[in-house]
Amino acid sequence: MSTISIIGSGKMAAAIAGRIAKAGHTVEVASRNPAKARALADQLGSGATTGTYSSVPVGDIVILAVPYEHAAAAVADYGNALSGKVIIDITNPVAPDLSGLVTPRGSSGAQETAKGLPANAHVVKAFNTIFGHVLAKGGRLDAFIAADDADAKARVSSFLESIDLRPLDVGGLHMAQTLESLGLMMIGLAKNGAGTWDFALKVDIG
Amino acid sequence: MSTISIIGSGKMAAAIAGRIAKAGHTVEVASRNPAKARALADQLGSGATTGTYSSVPVGDIVILAVPYEHAAAAVADYGNALSGKVIIDITNPVAPDLSGLVTPRGSSGAQETAKGLPANAHVVKAFNTIFGHVLAKGGRLDAFIAADDADAKARVSSFLESIDLRPLDVGGLHMAQTLESLGLMMIGLAKNGAGTWDFALKVDIG
Repeated sequence: MSTISIIGSGKMAAAIAGRIAKAGHTVEVASRNPAKARALADQLGSGATTGTYSSVPVGDIVILAVPYEHAAAAVADYGNALSGKVIIDITNPVAPDLSGLVTPRGSSGAQETAKGLPANAHVVKAFNTIFGHVLAKGGRLDAFIAADDADAKARVSSFLESIDLRPLDVGGLHMAQTLESLGLMMIGLAKNGAGTWDFALKVDIG
Repeated sequence: MSTISIIGSGKMAAAIAGRIAKAGHTVEVASRNPAKARALADQLGSGATTGTYSSVPVGDIVILAVPYEHAAAAVADYGNALSGKVIIDITNPVAPDLSGLVTPRGSSGAQETAKGLPANAHVVKAFNTIFGHVLAKGGRLDAFIAADDADAKARVSSFLESIDLRPLDVGGLHMAQTLESLGLMMIGLAKNGAGTWDFALKVDIG
């Protein structure tokens, strides 16, 4: 068991942190709003701690669980404090009117995050294709990931397995574009054909 | 049972046509290459016929089953012959090096197809998130669809149900962008995490 750091204290941060705590890891929560970080750590129990926003996180794996529009600022606030870390980008850079994605052509939220990080930090895209409330319910789920660095991808895959998710590698970090499109597709499906937000995507192999 | 027309005679056309013929519909195959259309119709049996490329198809539903790079030309060749038809666009406009999609920013293969059609024809995106060989195996599968016209969407949904696919509406035709990204994601998954091309995406509801 290890310490996993989370930057953010919103609903998605809480859902992910809940699963991590249940699996027996220690969670460190950091937020621009220290009171919200404290509230989430208290809610988690299981020895969860708070970290100081923009200081070096305890965990080797750091989950950037802030909305896309705040991700670049958070990465800038941390600067070299994220040196050597594996950063999990969970953002869904969806336009408010759901007409499309707001990322630059040929890029993704994850790639934009990578641009702001120290050179020896590595980004892994994950968690953006699972609704928070579905994650919080528990049960084994499929988790699509994309990353360039093989070691970072392997470490995140082991971590995902440890919280009862099946990691499914879709390729290099540029493939985060497809996962972020999939995030938007799931919202469209919830509002149209599924008629519910209570669903998960599953890969039926063989 | 009704007649469904297919433009194209490649692997994906054959996989879709096979399912349609098995369900008891009549298939009409048209291709720029009449010999290939004839060969596919013969292979299908079940009263499958050939149509004349660029002439009015028999079916009210016409499946445009040609590669993306030939879709605009096919639509231009047909011109007003597609007047009043429901066109199913199955294209996956993926770059040959799999680095991304080749469609214009903010558009999709389906939307590009729509631009070339008569005003009273309607495009429905479907079939691009199911591998041809998986479709050909049979069995109930999930089929994501996107379209602007409610009547066209309803007719395609009924048709998909009739060939043992579960239609799952993700929204308007602009959402075809997310389905085409998903097509690329599935290729990435096959080449990376899945280790096989023998899989299908399923929506687990509830």
